[in-house]
Amino acid sequence: MIVTNLKPPYFAVIFSTIVEDSLEGYLETADRMEELAKQQNGFLGMESARTEIGITVSYWQTEEDIIAWKNNIEHTEARILGREKWYKQYQLRICKVEREYGFKKFSL
Amino acid sequence: MIVTNLKPPYFAVIFSTIVEDSLEGYLETADRMEELAKQQNGFLGMESARTEIGITVSYWQTEEDIIAWKNNIEHTEARILGREKWYKQYQLRICKVEREYGFKKFSL
Repeated sequence: MIVTNLKPPYFAVIFSTIVEDSLEGYLETADRMEELAKQQNGFLGMESARTEIGITVSYWQTEEDIIAWKNNIEHTEARILGREKWYKQYQLRICKVEREYGFKKFSL
Repeated sequence: MIVTNLKPPYFAVIFSTIVEDSLEGYLETADRMEELAKQQNGFLGMESARTEIGITVSYWQTEEDIIAWKNNIEHTEARILGREKWYKQYQLRICKVEREYGFKKFSL
């Protein structure tokens, strides 16, 4: 699902990843992290896609919300597992969304 | 490929899309737009993935570079085709990348 109806300014975390061939436990943890993220203060939405690389963008009201989510214990443990087991490479970018616009066909 | 070695602050355009089932001419145009984007002033890199939704993130040195790319004639024509033929929905966000960090396994 595409996240709409947000009002800039707010914040985006762009998480670009390349994963290992063997991903035991990865999907369960990714699902749990999405569930947990949704419960955090300031969480506004999340978009994900994966082909050769994965891109997950999460949206947050403030930078403090992003830092609080980073410091969540269960999230921290999952990140340690991620570096040990699942990720060959990742890049994480913290961004301020300054403006946006959207398009939707009437037929939707 | 994941884009690395950039130095914040710079800018990101997050383009999230849902496409039609029939995509005649889409891939050729998408490839051409990527080729053309790479030739623009201030272009820093691009990342793409698609499953249920597509996410393409392009990176730019300044907001003026993004506006110049938006105003490129061939790009403008492609966007008109995109709304007519290929996209059911999209959301485009212009963001300032404030900080980033990365991880890469030694074995890569």
